[in-house]
Amino acid sequence: MMADVELIVDVPRLEEKLLLEELGRSGLRFKLTNAKYTPLAWGERPAEIALIRAVSMQRAAYCAAIRESSGARTINSAEAIIIAGDKILTLSRFWKAGIPFPETMIALNGEAAERAEKMVKFPVIDKPPIGSWGRLVTLVRDSQSFKSVIEHRELYQSQALKTHLIQRYIDGGRDLRVLVLGEEVLGAIWRSAANGDWRSNVARGGVVEVAELDEELRELALKVSSVIGGEFIAVDVFKEDGRYLVNEVNGVPEFKGFMEATKINVPRKIVEHVKGILRR
Amino acid sequence: MMADVELIVDVPRLEEKLLLEELGRSGLRFKLTNAKYTPLAWGERPAEIALIRAVSMQRAAYCAAIRESSGARTINSAEAIIIAGDKILTLSRFWKAGIPFPETMIALNGEAAERAEKMVKFPVIDKPPIGSWGRLVTLVRDSQSFKSVIEHRELYQSQALKTHLIQRYIDGGRDLRVLVLGEEVLGAIWRSAANGDWRSNVARGGVVEVAELDEELRELALKVSSVIGGEFIAVDVFKEDGRYLVNEVNGVPEFKGFMEATKINVPRKIVEHVKGILRR
Amino acid sequence: MMADVELIVDVPRLEEKLLLEELGRSGLRFKLTNAKYTPLAWGERPAEIALIRAVSMQRAAYCAAIRESSGARTINSAEAIIIAGDKILTLSRFWKAGIPFPETMIALNGEAAERAEKMVKFPVIDKPPIGSWGRLVTLVRDSQSFKSVIEHRELYQSQALKTHLIQRYIDGGRDLRVLVLGEEVLGAIWRSAANGDWRSNVARGGVVEVAELDEELRELALKVSSVIGGEFIAVDVFKEDGRYLVNEVNGVPEFKGFMEATKINVPRKIVEHVKGILRR
Amino acid sequence: MMADVELIVDVPRLEEKLLLEELGRSGLRFKLTNAKYTPLAWGERPAEIALIRAVSMQRAAYCAAIRESSGARTINSAEAIIIAGDKILTLSRFWKAGIPFPETMIALNGEAAERAEKMVKFPVIDKPPIGSWGRLVTLVRDSQSFKSVIEHRELYQSQALKTHLIQRYIDGGRDLRVLVLGEEVLGAIWRSAANGDWRSNVARGGVVEVAELDEELRELALKVSSVIGGEFIAVDVFKEDGRYLVNEVNGVPEFKGFMEATKINVPRKIVEHVKGILRR
Repeated sequence: MMADVELIVDVPRLEEKLLLEELGRSGLRFKLTNAKYTPLAWGERPAEIALIRAVSMQRAAYCAAIRESSGARTINSAEAIIIAGDKILTLSRFWKAGIPFPETMIALNGEAAERAEKMVKFPVIDKPPIGSWGRLVTLVRDSQSFKSVIEHRELYQSQALKTHLIQRYIDGGRDLRVLVLGEEVLGAIWRSAANGDWRSNVARGGVVEVAELDEELRELALKVSSVIGGEFIAVDVFKEDGRYLVNEVNGVPEFKGFMEATKINVPRKIVEHVKGILRR
Repeated sequence: MMADVELIVDVPRLEEKLLLEELGRSGLRFKLTNAKYTPLAWGERPAEIALIRAVSMQRAAYCAAIRESSGARTINSAEAIIIAGDKILTLSRFWKAGIPFPETMIALNGEAAERAEKMVKFPVIDKPPIGSWGRLVTLVRDSQSFKSVIEHRELYQSQALKTHLIQRYIDGGRDLRVLVLGEEVLGAIWRSAANGDWRSNVARGGVVEVAELDEELRELALKVSSVIGGEFIAVDVFKEDGRYLVNEVNGVPEFKGFMEATKINVPRKIVEHVKGILRR
Repeated sequence: MMADVELIVDVPRLEEKLLLEELGRSGLRFKLTNAKYTPLAWGERPAEIALIRAVSMQRAAYCAAIRESSGARTINSAEAIIIAGDKILTLSRFWKAGIPFPETMIALNGEAAERAEKMVKFPVIDKPPIGSWGRLVTLVRDSQSFKSVIEHRELYQSQALKTHLIQRYIDGGRDLRVLVLGEEVLGAIWRSAANGDWRSNVARGGVVEVAELDEELRELALKVSSVIGGEFIAVDVFKEDGRYLVNEVNGVPEFKGFMEATKINVPRKIVEHVKGILRR
Repeated sequence: MMADVELIVDVPRLEEKLLLEELGRSGLRFKLTNAKYTPLAWGERPAEIALIRAVSMQRAAYCAAIRESSGARTINSAEAIIIAGDKILTLSRFWKAGIPFPETMIALNGEAAERAEKMVKFPVIDKPPIGSWGRLVTLVRDSQSFKSVIEHRELYQSQALKTHLIQRYIDGGRDLRVLVLGEEVLGAIWRSAANGDWRSNVARGGVVEVAELDEELRELALKVSSVIGGEFIAVDVFKEDGRYLVNEVNGVPEFKGFMEATKINVPRKIVEHVKGILRR
């Protein structure tokens, strides 16, 4: 018997446990694959839909690529996961599509970063193109601190961790997170920095509250989703002087904080979305 | 004055030096950018065509993405560089398109690799999805050696270097390298292992000689190029029992050995190709 | 009130839990310090004796150095922990003292290892100077496998992990572990490889049984302890053709397997030893 | 013929080239060993004296340990190289011997560093225990910057690079470097920060000038040398309100800047020192 849905995980979080429960209640034929323990191969007959929920972006992309090429529809596609998982690729799509984001320079090396430093106005945000939960996202207030960040980053082995996005700092202490599923914008929340951190990530103790979803934000989120090629994505947005600036996108979104603030049952929404596809 | 061509490098090799000389003779307006020293930004008015020649795959992909989104045509596109630069993404495209390649299992973790080990028949090739010049490509003859490879790989920090492609070993000591530029297959060479290494990479002392380019190989190379979305790529191919099996693709191909064996002036071909595009 | 004993840990194992219980029963004034969470400083008035039980060799050495210099007696001393924690430093002490060990070459780089490879007779053991539980200890059967090990090791960032001890392989599938506390040899066990691994480490599933402690082994263990400057150490010994060859020493020994096989209450022995010192 | 002197290097700098020339003029029988290419073994009959000049501290320590145990006198000893090469081990020796140094806390982990942060008064210097040329030595002005440094350091794989010395910042923009050879203090120089860096390391463009060597500084340097067990070492000293505070020690000292400022021929001094030992 072929499954309708395969849930692919590596380190299951609350989100994956809720999804699994919801699948259990759904009447769908589903199977659970942990990509940390299971070898994968092309040519295995896949489920019709694969929900890609690996925490590691790289693992998520690989699972999606393998399942896709064997005929499954993956949520999200390998392409969306790769684009959303890399902030330089994301912003490149944004630029082409005219989606507004904070002014950003790219330095692919320490030397380039030192030159970029002379062109920017502090404070700036320095961050690598990959990584979640605000990891290594640094608020840099002056040239000396920036040199120190560059020096620390140069010792990493990974080329991506040596790469700098140097971005205008958007003050305010909070940002919006919008969840998009298919053609539907599920809702939006404010995330506010807390715990002495200036970053608003929920994983860093950021405080959430439901946000109003005006038409402009709704359309912006749908456009971002379409530009990334996403089917279930989170869009992080700053609001500055009444204007929206998209910060980044998440291709395997966490939604615990979103559920708390909005009371929306996201796993149920996902399973309904999956059923809709299967009915077609 | 806007340039016709931007040559983007990081660590210039012979290939890049020859390209630069050829551009100098071409009458084209061109500029040279070293991505190790130059900050990049969206919105800079780019040259019409950007030749992406960074050694680092990641740097190459970023340069391509940024220039593309600002309106340049890049050779190759970011997408082709990313797909060709990752063997799992490459093989996923191959599988979908029906391009033959050696049987391969994927293990995204040490535990998965240990399970995969029980399913394969030695000898196998174990390799990570990223990397050039045959780096970490290991010929594994028995279970104990495989366990040792897994253990060494688990200590790397990079998720990609912990990921295993476990592939049927194609004996023979040599492979074909085919260069494709646009719609033209430039030629093919045999690369044979030497210097006590079993790998045929030219960077490892592999010996080259010109190879016959039959119709089947020509069509296969063009199909690979099209499936990857490449404009200038190298296709590495095994020949086993008269049958072609594609091994991998290179999205920023070195061509020193190819020029030596075939006497084809590859940089001139590239510049002519560029002129052809500009004329349109 | 000043403590008699400070137990310093980082990631408490069974051994540390047993030690803590035994200290609780001992009537001694003691305190527990977790070096992962507690900043350390010179000039804090230390306990008279510090039991150093950090799993990380480097952390153990630092804790010992700081406490020692503030006036505590540490078990073990920083020096003993550093010497025992590095196989090159250990063997250097052995050579000077005439303690027999398997023939070993040292290569401080990949190039040196490739030259060493031409001088050795396979099979050999290749291992880095640091590390526990047999980690990266590799049984190498031929030149090609050795080249592959060298290549994998060269990509590590740590100089120690790029360093090779290339050692004659002592067949037999088992080794002796002798525990020495002060002037007393507590006992000895055989550790035999199991679980499909060729290494006998208990952490790898090695099977233990009590071993006879003859006079030669007893004297050898005491000599090793004295040469390392150890107060509580484990000595790992091969027996080949009736002759003892010391393999390595552990300066923060695990003793779970030893207790199981010998029924000796090691934590009690340690606490009695500590009381003996305090009485002096 | 047995050599009088073995000069052991890995990546020869100006210092090693000058030493080699001086040995060439000396009439001594000497040999040059590059530890990057030469396997080492115990039992090779060593030269009487081994001058250890490897840039890598770990390689230097290993070379010294192996040569020492085979009977050579090494300059410096493995012990001195190890102690001088690790700032926590150095300061532990200092504390015990009553040598003054800036107030310092040790955090062996990110969590410990976050607790230490609450106890210190900014600005502070944060640095890892190992490393040369001021690498990763960071001037931290506030709590947020410190959190960012901790976060960057936590991603390193090496335990040493995750370890923090958190030190009172000694303002002034310059420090003293004193060279000690045997019982002789060769001289002292001031090193002043330049090139927009706040660190005075010559490798970072620090400017040198000859310094007066008063009796207090001379005695302090000799005491440091004796406490470290050094035979040829550099002692880095701050002067604050007329008081000397020792910062760190180098067990394989560079002396290019020292020669420029003092006109003292250091390689000649070393070779004379070696001759003095050989005559005994």
